[in-house]
Amino acid sequence: MTDKTANQMWGGRFASGPDAIMEAINASISFDQRLAAQDIAGSRAHAAMLAAQGIITNKDSDTIREGLLTVLSEIEGGSFQFSTALEDIHMNVEARLKEVIGEPAGRLHTGRSRNDQVATDFRLWVRDQADAAIAGLEALMRALLGQAEAGADWVMPGFTHLQTAQPVTWGHHMMAYVEMFARDKSRFEDARRRMNESPLGAAALAGTSFPIDRHATAAALGFDRPMANSLDAVSDRDFALEFLGASSICAMHLSRMAEELVIWSSAQFRFVVLSDRFSTGSSIMPQKKNPDAAELIRAKIGRIFGANVALMMVMKGLPLAYSKDMQEDKEQVFDAADNLMLALAAMTGMVGDMQANVPALEAAAGAGFSTATDLADWLVRVLGMPFRDAHHVTGALVALAEGKGCDLPELSLADMQGVEPRITDEVFGVLGVHNSVASRMSYGGTAPERVREQVTAWTEKLG
Amino acid sequence: MTDKTANQMWGGRFASGPDAIMEAINASISFDQRLAAQDIAGSRAHAAMLAAQGIITNKDSDTIREGLLTVLSEIEGGSFQFSTALEDIHMNVEARLKEVIGEPAGRLHTGRSRNDQVATDFRLWVRDQADAAIAGLEALMRALLGQAEAGADWVMPGFTHLQTAQPVTWGHHMMAYVEMFARDKSRFEDARRRMNESPLGAAALAGTSFPIDRHATAAALGFDRPMANSLDAVSDRDFALEFLGASSICAMHLSRMAEELVIWSSAQFRFVVLSDRFSTGSSIMPQKKNPDAAELIRAKIGRIFGANVALMMVMKGLPLAYSKDMQEDKEQVFDAADNLMLALAAMTGMVGDMQANVPALEAAAGAGFSTATDLADWLVRVLGMPFRDAHHVTGALVALAEGKGCDLPELSLADMQGVEPRITDEVFGVLGVHNSVASRMSYGGTAPERVREQVTAWTEKLG
Amino acid sequence: MTDKTANQMWGGRFASGPDAIMEAINASISFDQRLAAQDIAGSRAHAAMLAAQGIITNKDSDTIREGLLTVLSEIEGGSFQFSTALEDIHMNVEARLKEVIGEPAGRLHTGRSRNDQVATDFRLWVRDQADAAIAGLEALMRALLGQAEAGADWVMPGFTHLQTAQPVTWGHHMMAYVEMFARDKSRFEDARRRMNESPLGAAALAGTSFPIDRHATAAALGFDRPMANSLDAVSDRDFALEFLGASSICAMHLSRMAEELVIWSSAQFRFVVLSDRFSTGSSIMPQKKNPDAAELIRAKIGRIFGANVALMMVMKGLPLAYSKDMQEDKEQVFDAADNLMLALAAMTGMVGDMQANVPALEAAAGAGFSTATDLADWLVRVLGMPFRDAHHVTGALVALAEGKGCDLPELSLADMQGVEPRITDEVFGVLGVHNSVASRMSYGGTAPERVREQVTAWTEKLG
Amino acid sequence: MTDKTANQMWGGRFASGPDAIMEAINASISFDQRLAAQDIAGSRAHAAMLAAQGIITNKDSDTIREGLLTVLSEIEGGSFQFSTALEDIHMNVEARLKEVIGEPAGRLHTGRSRNDQVATDFRLWVRDQADAAIAGLEALMRALLGQAEAGADWVMPGFTHLQTAQPVTWGHHMMAYVEMFARDKSRFEDARRRMNESPLGAAALAGTSFPIDRHATAAALGFDRPMANSLDAVSDRDFALEFLGASSICAMHLSRMAEELVIWSSAQFRFVVLSDRFSTGSSIMPQKKNPDAAELIRAKIGRIFGANVALMMVMKGLPLAYSKDMQEDKEQVFDAADNLMLALAAMTGMVGDMQANVPALEAAAGAGFSTATDLADWLVRVLGMPFRDAHHVTGALVALAEGKGCDLPELSLADMQGVEPRITDEVFGVLGVHNSVASRMSYGGTAPERVREQVTAWTEKLG
Repeated sequence: MTDKTANQMWGGRFASGPDAIMEAINASISFDQRLAAQDIAGSRAHAAMLAAQGIITNKDSDTIREGLLTVLSEIEGGSFQFSTALEDIHMNVEARLKEVIGEPAGRLHTGRSRNDQVATDFRLWVRDQADAAIAGLEALMRALLGQAEAGADWVMPGFTHLQTAQPVTWGHHMMAYVEMFARDKSRFEDARRRMNESPLGAAALAGTSFPIDRHATAAALGFDRPMANSLDAVSDRDFALEFLGASSICAMHLSRMAEELVIWSSAQFRFVVLSDRFSTGSSIMPQKKNPDAAELIRAKIGRIFGANVALMMVMKGLPLAYSKDMQEDKEQVFDAADNLMLALAAMTGMVGDMQANVPALEAAAGAGFSTATDLADWLVRVLGMPFRDAHHVTGALVALAEGKGCDLPELSLADMQGVEPRITDEVFGVLGVHNSVASRMSYGGTAPERVREQVTAWTEKLG
Repeated sequence: MTDKTANQMWGGRFASGPDAIMEAINASISFDQRLAAQDIAGSRAHAAMLAAQGIITNKDSDTIREGLLTVLSEIEGGSFQFSTALEDIHMNVEARLKEVIGEPAGRLHTGRSRNDQVATDFRLWVRDQADAAIAGLEALMRALLGQAEAGADWVMPGFTHLQTAQPVTWGHHMMAYVEMFARDKSRFEDARRRMNESPLGAAALAGTSFPIDRHATAAALGFDRPMANSLDAVSDRDFALEFLGASSICAMHLSRMAEELVIWSSAQFRFVVLSDRFSTGSSIMPQKKNPDAAELIRAKIGRIFGANVALMMVMKGLPLAYSKDMQEDKEQVFDAADNLMLALAAMTGMVGDMQANVPALEAAAGAGFSTATDLADWLVRVLGMPFRDAHHVTGALVALAEGKGCDLPELSLADMQGVEPRITDEVFGVLGVHNSVASRMSYGGTAPERVREQVTAWTEKLG
Repeated sequence: MTDKTANQMWGGRFASGPDAIMEAINASISFDQRLAAQDIAGSRAHAAMLAAQGIITNKDSDTIREGLLTVLSEIEGGSFQFSTALEDIHMNVEARLKEVIGEPAGRLHTGRSRNDQVATDFRLWVRDQADAAIAGLEALMRALLGQAEAGADWVMPGFTHLQTAQPVTWGHHMMAYVEMFARDKSRFEDARRRMNESPLGAAALAGTSFPIDRHATAAALGFDRPMANSLDAVSDRDFALEFLGASSICAMHLSRMAEELVIWSSAQFRFVVLSDRFSTGSSIMPQKKNPDAAELIRAKIGRIFGANVALMMVMKGLPLAYSKDMQEDKEQVFDAADNLMLALAAMTGMVGDMQANVPALEAAAGAGFSTATDLADWLVRVLGMPFRDAHHVTGALVALAEGKGCDLPELSLADMQGVEPRITDEVFGVLGVHNSVASRMSYGGTAPERVREQVTAWTEKLG
Repeated sequence: MTDKTANQMWGGRFASGPDAIMEAINASISFDQRLAAQDIAGSRAHAAMLAAQGIITNKDSDTIREGLLTVLSEIEGGSFQFSTALEDIHMNVEARLKEVIGEPAGRLHTGRSRNDQVATDFRLWVRDQADAAIAGLEALMRALLGQAEAGADWVMPGFTHLQTAQPVTWGHHMMAYVEMFARDKSRFEDARRRMNESPLGAAALAGTSFPIDRHATAAALGFDRPMANSLDAVSDRDFALEFLGASSICAMHLSRMAEELVIWSSAQFRFVVLSDRFSTGSSIMPQKKNPDAAELIRAKIGRIFGANVALMMVMKGLPLAYSKDMQEDKEQVFDAADNLMLALAAMTGMVGDMQANVPALEAAAGAGFSTATDLADWLVRVLGMPFRDAHHVTGALVALAEGKGCDLPELSLADMQGVEPRITDEVFGVLGVHNSVASRMSYGGTAPERVREQVTAWTEKLG
């Protein structure tokens, strides 16, 4: 009844002794093969620079650069044989290059080392993921803008403490998420800018005596500049941590929206119907529709922020420059990036598909004397009452309505004047959920007009 | 220069629309196939019980149980075709069982559901890992006992703040880790005991109306008893969290020992020589030996505790009973368990192989007037001096030795009596690092005699 | 508009130079004064032992022990003047003792050091908190048992994915939490047992040459035994981490229950009414009742597990034996313990006060054809249908009921036999929510009879 | 022997019933009084705007604004009586304002609510801390520049895996930290820019119907603009999380440097002597100097990143808009900010004071054939050897030197030519640690000339 397969595997490896254990803990090729394209791009830039600086011949450089393309096509085509004995992607590529082009392959490693090479590869990979996150966020924002535009004046309850507080508009609620995801986007943009410096040429840790041109390789790889300190270049993993930090906040935003979708699609709320494509059903309970995708998105913050914790813990207290501990960086970032992109795509799909239950939203918005605040504000604004008195009068009117089993707008003017004689029928202009939301015209407020302005502004910004 | 392979893969999937995204986020077969042996063990126990209770026929039960063994052998033999469309290991096994044995396969699922099935499978898997951790810890403790026995009277510096405080013995230092890992072992034992209850038969969440015998399936699977509440049975992941918690503290202990090995194998310390099998060298710097395995072990706490954070975050605020969020539990525990077992094995190998540099340890132990405390204690103990006065006299003697460029035991009795006339030559019995450690005979102290007692006691306990 | 007060405070301290910064970062008296009672208990036990072993006189011991009581009463009475210059609680107590009793105070520190003293104090404090957590959990379990007993047969929806899956009983749901909190209790009990060893007498790190009796001090302080290795004794913080780990899982359970209370008290669910004492209201919206206490309890996992992360991070990679880093342990544990006890007390109060809305629960339990599974199970159990066929028939009957706008029990037998002729009127015995829950008699199932058995069993266990 | 004081306190509170528990869990005045200055600044801006918009009279506005200054001076002067019954800083200030100025106080709360008020206050506080972090980082960078300038050409070992790899310069090592802290600074600058939007006027969650001018209050408080969505404005805590994220990476950098200082000040390394002001000594071991401040700084990442975990966990899955869970945000940020500022100040002091042991650094830099790589590079560069052959020749020369018990520069030319005849005496120009570092002239390399350029550039940038 035990996991014999797994235990035997480990048992077998351990039986074969320390060498097997060391290989298991030391080799990274099982995961760093994902850096193949970045590794080859870096090597091609390096070879071109070496020739331009006269460190190797143009002929060697051309041979190397051509050979690397061959290796890349083998990897992309799936015919490449990765070897654990060769430990990592760098050695695997280099060894294959040697088979393909022979002796010139040995000149490629001039003026660099594995330390700056892996730092460059990983930085390029993370930069790509920052770009992917930005694109994913833009797609999600567009889906939200679509919902916001459609429902700029649908009213729904605005919750605090999951209790109805005041009516808001569906569009306004959607736009709140646009703001959050826009901050995420700008966080990824800042991270990308900060990480966009080239470690290549830092060599093992001290720079090199070869007359290399780090500005040239930096430019060739799309970096803004070379990193200014070689010790820092090989020992820095800030770019990965900052990517994980931005991803974590983004995953937190996704978890909040996912939580709302789970609650909203409950039988008790029925605010929204999720599409079948992002739900699973029951063969015998027709209206049961499990919001699986929403739940999984809600959960993704776990592994994404868990990766952030993991890498922060690895880096804590590491002396300069390179320590092998840092090899633990990649799997965490790979997993976090994959899951963030997946969660963004799934949320984009769900938001695009979901159907608001407009009547249910409106009914819920008006329950619970949700416009009592509007009444109190009217008493202050129009009659000049002090706040506290306005609250007192409002409380009395709500009690009256409750006693009559009606809502505030259904009270007669006479009823109202019985409580406060100065009330005029102008007051009915702020009661009722549509009046309420329409009146909240302050900048950033929930009025449909304001929401539409924001939708327009964001649509333009996203281009 | 970008990770085109990866981007195209995702791009391709996303292009093919929501269905592909949903499958990517929803299916678990890529990882939960590791539960195959547990899943089949659980199903076999369930089938036997159904027959014993008269819910299915003995013939059907036999057919099912036999068929499950066939499926297991296919999986272990590598010939099984896992299908993502079938989502998870349970459906994959069930579908194949149907192909193998036909109609009786449909009776297996009577009185249970996927919710209690996955809870059972995962619990069995984690229980196996608790056993594996216990075995791994015992092996490591034995390796440490070997070092402690060999070096019960080798002296070395006892550090506080990484500054020499007092001499201790190598054996005593090794035995400190035996204590830590013994606590880890007892923590896994407690976790195993607490998790050893069977969820099987809780069904979807409410139990079942079939007359099943949950005590029978619990016993067949080695559980101490069935879980007492079906809602709890399907929504509990404490066992996984407690396993991760115990693993995290263990990984923290490993990180401390690994840190010491890294520092001790530096050129400045030279306290220990690690074997080539757990190090990497330099082709041109002969005595450079990088403690790669130690560094990687030091780093493992990152991903192990990161997994703990991830799962705790997933479980935060989940309403009862089952939510899909909980599918995120397995990958975290798989990765943490694999890496803990690997780190334990690597540390066991390193400890077994490592060579203490006894002369260097002894030289370092005696530097810095490390037995000044022994002198002060002697003044208190033998001459009855108050502590503060004893410290004053000791300070004066240390200053005298420092001025003469010698160590405390090298002062003459006359020198000493010049500072404090009541000192007798009995004092030399506590000076010097060997005298110092021999004198610390309090229970748990560093005296070789005490260390040997502990080695004997632990050797017996481990059997 | 800036926080001038705070900035000036820091600015002022920094301006006064490095000494002020060092004092600010180094001194612990601002928080470790909470260890006063433990510190004095430890010192009293130590003094008694020193006299029993003949290391100090009985007279000195009596003087010291009496003097320490005086100091304790000053601290408890609030008249004690804590001094930052004296850094920590140990030095503050010792200095005051000297003022109170004079010279004998200097003999107290014989055969111990601040390293084992603080380890002892903190361990005693954490042990007290484990006891407090156990007591708090028992109180909460009793409150839940009260709810379970009252509502052993109230039906409510059993949710998966926050969608109604099958009816369960209120008592069953409450008892699920009893199981969770019982595991928490047993986790604190295990932690308490494991931590209940005395570090006292480990001295600075190596033990001592004084003939102390560590078993005696251990016994006097209620410890099961002295710790077996002095290096481990002063460098171990497992007890704090294990306390935080148990607290974190407990806080996670609390967060789940709190989430349910927040959702259940929404206007859309109305499953429960929280008492005014644990809610806040609105002066003008009469039925608005914010579940503040539930929300705060839900949030407490943040700081409690955050403390776990903090201390794990501090301990990562620390070489033996004592490092000053470890001074960061206390504030984390203090804050986590305070907040756990507060959350337990608040939850106990809320559970005791809360009113289930029985009609709303029952209405929700029956919606959505929640007993379709019962019907399918009946077809399997009584008619011997294969599962898949039973699901097909059930689907057809649900569709029929949906078409008629009625629920399953409201179909006529003729309607049913139109779909499957073998159905008899015995089937109505499993339809309807009360029949459904009554039928789930498997061990651990939701049947009221089963729930009452569990209530009785737990009531007895809690004594 | 137990913490009776604490237990009685809690026991007493609990005995007095639910109300005391609710007050204990609900009130925030014990910590949010730190927001007093920000709260009053926000209220003063709001009052001025209300008058400018004609919502209240100029006279009322002046009275309010004057009264608020009175309240502020009472708080700063320490005479203010905070009341727990008034729950939080906002209510405490408002209640006191009413006592001071009477009826106009009631008009201050027009068009805002506690939700946007606390969001504004906290944002202002965090913005101040971002500024403080930036200032603290600049001071630390200046201290590092001082060390780098002084030691631009002191050689020391460049470590990988804590093994000597190649010689580097002290200045280069210091400048690596300048780069790290500069990234931290830019991260705080980005965070500050992103958070610098005003929530004021978002009211409870939906905006307001009063004709307020949010741009005016934003400008008055130094914000760049008002936040664009009122729901987002009251439910966003990204600014706190981003501050904690930037603080955590910064604390990680500090932990790395602190680890180096602890190792460097060990008796085995002796690379650096820390000043007495940031160390503690031993009364009897004269050269024992414990690097307490460095250890405490190393540990600070625990609580700072622990706070990040705590708040991320609190925010996970919170539905919009305001939930009471969010009240748990402040204590985490307060503690993290205080400790970051303290750690930065302590590190700045230590760096300013520390004395490099130049001879020890140089001796260590040359040990272990640390310039073997330079020799190999020379063979490639000057003789045009392929890398692999160059490594082979270098290995032979190192073996020769090892056999003779000398270092590489001490071999004769004849010795060298015995291994490889083409070697000329030009080779001695790259051997020896000073030649080695001088040769690493690549951009970002360790050559003193490069280091001085970087020092100059950074000194200019910091102004």
